[in-house]
Amino acid sequence: MPKIIDHAQRREDIIDVAWGLIVEGGIEAVTMREVASRAGFANGALRHTFSGKDEIVKAAYERALLKIQDSLLAQVKGLQGIAALEASLRATLPTTIADPSSSRVLLSFWERVAFNPTLDEDYSQHVQVWTDGYLQHVTEGRALGEIVTELPDEQIVNEAILLNIGATVLHVVSPTHLKAATLEAQVTDFLARLRTP
Amino acid sequence: MPKIIDHAQRREDIIDVAWGLIVEGGIEAVTMREVASRAGFANGALRHTFSGKDEIVKAAYERALLKIQDSLLAQVKGLQGIAALEASLRATLPTTIADPSSSRVLLSFWERVAFNPTLDEDYSQHVQVWTDGYLQHVTEGRALGEIVTELPDEQIVNEAILLNIGATVLHVVSPTHLKAATLEAQVTDFLARLRTP
Repeated sequence: MPKIIDHAQRREDIIDVAWGLIVEGGIEAVTMREVASRAGFANGALRHTFSGKDEIVKAAYERALLKIQDSLLAQVKGLQGIAALEASLRATLPTTIADPSSSRVLLSFWERVAFNPTLDEDYSQHVQVWTDGYLQHVTEGRALGEIVTELPDEQIVNEAILLNIGATVLHVVSPTHLKAATLEAQVTDFLARLRTP
Repeated sequence: MPKIIDHAQRREDIIDVAWGLIVEGGIEAVTMREVASRAGFANGALRHTFSGKDEIVKAAYERALLKIQDSLLAQVKGLQGIAALEASLRATLPTTIADPSSSRVLLSFWERVAFNPTLDEDYSQHVQVWTDGYLQHVTEGRALGEIVTELPDEQIVNEAILLNIGATVLHVVSPTHLKAATLEAQVTDFLARLRTP
């Protein structure tokens, strides 16, 4: 009887290994050789699952997004307008997300994105989806009469996204300078301004 | 006559090489071997100038900061309060700084900081200096009666820093989603809010 390989499980196991390597030593610690060795199979076998390092890093990033989005979707479900924006913003703060190592994986992925056109395109698509989601909630908020600021919608969304990215980086590189309470208050102020003409 | 080595020049040459490697291939492209080879001397000679990769990456980061701070200091000179805050904020936007490759070097440095306690301490000190500088301008602005917002000073400074870091990352990883005009408008709005009770 041929050996049965659970490919989905193997994929998850490899992502576990890559995740651990990123958390320990950053993007540079993820090499095909090291991943294969820690996952306990030959480099050739690894290449059946992932064609190269970028594929593995991308899979780790997608898991990080998924971890964040899982809690996000649960929070936002059934909400619209400012309530949906608030739930999205708060659920994705680095000080809120369940697994803080996700911030590290995101930072390492961003570093890689900067020099890899394929990852760059993937990430730009993600930012577009992110932008569109926030824009939809702003549009709902305007329709409901909750959002009355004169600030352009694009600027509102931009502010929310830069807040999230900035906080994610600072949370990793200088956590003592990112107080959860200050960040929460900044979100509260942002939302209050949407309600102010 | 012994060969005269210009150590300061050698240091600058090595940073040039490391800077180019980061821009081409990110943090991972910077290896002692590659830097020595491109700079045209033996690995041993390189180690007389820099003890290891982290020292080189740190020197590249310091050059990136210096490039930003040079224009910053020129802009802020003689100013205080909101005028100083405005000049600082605008001069350090990734869409404004003279050499856009500085953003890439900063991102790669941040990725490295996350996994290196020595760099981490250096960077935390930098964030403290950055925070203190902004706090001083906020204090001046309050004394001048220009800043009348009820937002806590710490939150104001935090918002400015997260805006800068978030913009720096987005500028590198998804530049199509960061419009200079939107970012400028966000800064204008931020400053206007300081003047609003």
